Amino acid sequence: MGANKVTLGRLAAHVAGRLEGPDDTELSGIAELASAGPEELSFLINQHDLETAKTTKAAAVLVSDSLAPVSLPMIWVSNVPEAINMALELFTRPPQADPGIHPTALIATDATLGSDVAIGPYVVVQNGTTVGDGSVLQAGCYLGRDCLVGQQCRFAPGVVIADRSQIGNRVVLEQNVVIGSQGFGYRCRDGQHRHIPHLGAVRIGDDVEIGAGTCVDRAKFGFTVIGRGTKIDNLVSIAHNVRVGEYCLIAAQTGIAGSAVVGNRVVFGGQVGVRDNITIGDGVVAGARAAIHHDLPPGVVVLGMPALERRQALREQAVLRRLPDWPARIKKLEQRLTDLESAADHRQRD
Amino acid sequence: MGANKVTLGRLAAHVAGRLEGPDDTELSGIAELASAGPEELSFLINQHDLETAKTTKAAAVLVSDSLAPVSLPMIWVSNVPEAINMALELFTRPPQADPGIHPTALIATDATLGSDVAIGPYVVVQNGTTVGDGSVLQAGCYLGRDCLVGQQCRFAPGVVIADRSQIGNRVVLEQNVVIGSQGFGYRCRDGQHRHIPHLGAVRIGDDVEIGAGTCVDRAKFGFTVIGRGTKIDNLVSIAHNVRVGEYCLIAAQTGIAGSAVVGNRVVFGGQVGVRDNITIGDGVVAGARAAIHHDLPPGVVVLGMPALERRQALREQAVLRRLPDWPARIKKLEQRLTDLESAADHRQRD
Amino acid sequence: MGANKVTLGRLAAHVAGRLEGPDDTELSGIAELASAGPEELSFLINQHDLETAKTTKAAAVLVSDSLAPVSLPMIWVSNVPEAINMALELFTRPPQADPGIHPTALIATDATLGSDVAIGPYVVVQNGTTVGDGSVLQAGCYLGRDCLVGQQCRFAPGVVIADRSQIGNRVVLEQNVVIGSQGFGYRCRDGQHRHIPHLGAVRIGDDVEIGAGTCVDRAKFGFTVIGRGTKIDNLVSIAHNVRVGEYCLIAAQTGIAGSAVVGNRVVFGGQVGVRDNITIGDGVVAGARAAIHHDLPPGVVVLGMPALERRQALREQAVLRRLPDWPARIKKLEQRLTDLESAADHRQRD
Repeated sequence: MGANKVTLGRLAAHVAGRLEGPDDTELSGIAELASAGPEELSFLINQHDLETAKTTKAAAVLVSDSLAPVSLPMIWVSNVPEAINMALELFTRPPQADPGIHPTALIATDATLGSDVAIGPYVVVQNGTTVGDGSVLQAGCYLGRDCLVGQQCRFAPGVVIADRSQIGNRVVLEQNVVIGSQGFGYRCRDGQHRHIPHLGAVRIGDDVEIGAGTCVDRAKFGFTVIGRGTKIDNLVSIAHNVRVGEYCLIAAQTGIAGSAVVGNRVVFGGQVGVRDNITIGDGVVAGARAAIHHDLPPGVVVLGMPALERRQALREQAVLRRLPDWPARIKKLEQRLTDLESAADHRQRD
Repeated sequence: MGANKVTLGRLAAHVAGRLEGPDDTELSGIAELASAGPEELSFLINQHDLETAKTTKAAAVLVSDSLAPVSLPMIWVSNVPEAINMALELFTRPPQADPGIHPTALIATDATLGSDVAIGPYVVVQNGTTVGDGSVLQAGCYLGRDCLVGQQCRFAPGVVIADRSQIGNRVVLEQNVVIGSQGFGYRCRDGQHRHIPHLGAVRIGDDVEIGAGTCVDRAKFGFTVIGRGTKIDNLVSIAHNVRVGEYCLIAAQTGIAGSAVVGNRVVFGGQVGVRDNITIGDGVVAGARAAIHHDLPPGVVVLGMPALERRQALREQAVLRRLPDWPARIKKLEQRLTDLESAADHRQRD
Repeated sequence: MGANKVTLGRLAAHVAGRLEGPDDTELSGIAELASAGPEELSFLINQHDLETAKTTKAAAVLVSDSLAPVSLPMIWVSNVPEAINMALELFTRPPQADPGIHPTALIATDATLGSDVAIGPYVVVQNGTTVGDGSVLQAGCYLGRDCLVGQQCRFAPGVVIADRSQIGNRVVLEQNVVIGSQGFGYRCRDGQHRHIPHLGAVRIGDDVEIGAGTCVDRAKFGFTVIGRGTKIDNLVSIAHNVRVGEYCLIAAQTGIAGSAVVGNRVVFGGQVGVRDNITIGDGVVAGARAAIHHDLPPGVVVLGMPALERRQALREQAVLRRLPDWPARIKKLEQRLTDLESAADHRQRD
């Protein structure tokens, strides 16, 4: 990965902005005002930045209508953070990979490699496995037997793909991702746990991206499935026979237990937990650390442990914050009642 | 890993079922009714499956007495899910490994390898390490110095075993497992943390299985211990000097802090946390996400954060769900009391 | 890693203790009384140990004034646990690494290696990367392009460092650590998530130590930063653009979301979660499993989910434990009120 040189004119066009300044100035990256160098683009987010802009070395800035002009080349845009993300698309070169097959890569004789693949040092590709056109396997990746890897994939160093995995096109697997590990399923016999062999495998759809260190277990039979377009962060655990739908976002350290079914366009914050054998409807959003124990209908937003619908969760939390005052309050109620009761009792006896 | 061909007759015998159909039909796997092919076994779980069975391509089905017969070869069993697990034992071939030592494996001159070992490409075995008969080290495994690995072990690609680890027989370590990493122990001196060297190591009993990406730290001195027959899932963290007993089940992303002692036959759901230096009794069961802060006596079942005995945890949760209604209820109580008090006050003044 | 032989005399001096016994006895390690061998140091912590000491095979013991003498060579110290940690510094030899560059290591022609580096088998160092004097890269480490690695670093087997990472001096990275993975940042366009390229990198200060399997993502631009002297445990996830200060301690399985800022000397227990884009002040302490959703001022101690200041968290927990008794108590209050009200009503009607 590295940085391209991009002219101000091309940048302004790409971010759909209006340029005030020379369109042929070449830039090579983005930085905050205080740290930007003379070849870098910077940006103004708030009033405070107007001051910092006076001393920045940046070559130009992204700025929105809500702020005053500065004495630098400017690209006016409607949404600065969005424009930064778009600019990054121009600046960033994808990680470079030496084309061809490194002489230390061990490709089984009956493996099939597409055209324009790039296979790094110490990669191992076992028998019966196919790698599609333009895919990149960086150093030390391991592909087991009878796997199917699509086109234009990129596997970072240390990725391990177990036998019979099926991986779509344009799939990105970050460093040390594991696909197809044995599921955690045991039969108890005579007080000892005996592993249930997992005959199934993992199937990953097109355009899936999976973060560093994440592990996806193979199915008992059939497939553990990650649907097309789903993005998964670092150190996530996806158990055997889980089915994750399409276009989901699953943040770091989330765990999904065996045979759970996750719908399409579901969003999980970090450290979420999903119980085994439950079904999460399409479009569900679960806040960070939510512990989901039950089926969830489509579209609900849940928070907390156990995960509750957002409104209920927030109401409970609000009451909990006041809870420490209640014992005294209730005790006082009881005292007042006792006083009234003895007064009444006294009156009666009078 | 792959699939064996198995006759219906052998299958029926293995799952202790009664066969209605030809005993010499050969099958090669298991699938759900809807997706099964003509060489696959399928199964009926509920009434709905009777309908699907009419169009399945499966060669035969597992079925229990609670359901009506179908027009396919059938194996009648008392427990279908259990029979599926048993059938998987017949179908599944263990992961294949090329016998012998791959020419790229680097075995130190004074390492000792048993008979019938299979050592994959780019494996490194350092000085003084012994690997027992029939053990399999898949591609890229690293074994440090003076380790002892028993017989019939299987280490998946990318496993890293640090110096002086002791590993029993029939131990399975999945992809990228780390055994013997340095413990997280520091002395604070002059406001800086200085690492306490960890002279100890890790000892793993027979028949232990450890999931992908899990890390087990070495002891300060002596051993971090995982007892015989214990099964550990993916991405679990086991800290220095922890002692886990025998025949435990520890689900994904659980963390056990330094010097904690876990008894025998303990079961942890996913994402459980165990505090350092506490003792968990034999047979304890902790639900997913339980946060265990204190010693637990044998046999208790705990839930929640902090982990409480199941009954207390469920009672608290039940009350919590109703809590948002209480502020109004208490306010009303206070109002009614005030009314009574002013009435009484009024009467008194009368 | 192995054990040095150390004389009792040298030991006593190093732990600032007073020796009763021969100063030339050679020891080779530490063990508990029951398991110590005749070349090992042991220690007495409590009264019970006085009994065990009668049968130990240990060559000598650490003991403090609070206990009676035993009939073994003794080193009297003020703090036994601390003396154990100090003794470990003498006994432990750092992990040994064969000096020089293993013939299977692939060092790019324009990479730069300092003097006295030790580079293990199957290591890959890409173009433009510099490794400082005395640094050790164990087997299978991967260093991408244009990285800067300081002096006296030690990277355990399986470490992966992505392009342009900057790593200080004396940095220890344990097994399978990943530095510089792509951040989890997406733009949503036409209902699909499009990855925001991460042009930035990771910068790690001097004396940082990072535990096995931990992943640190690269920044969108600029750097994800881990400050000098910070120690991070296993399986931690640090997202893009996070800035962690100096001399922090971050325990296992903690997750820090994108662009969060963590001050100096912050301590996180295990499984802590930190929300994106918040700021944690210097010296904050968060108990295990704390879920931090908001900015925290310097020096506060927080617990729980959501993380609350310790005092508030403990008060809530105390009330929660009594909560199951409250519904009956409130119901009774309501009944008593109703009784009083009908009595009053009755009186009025009289």
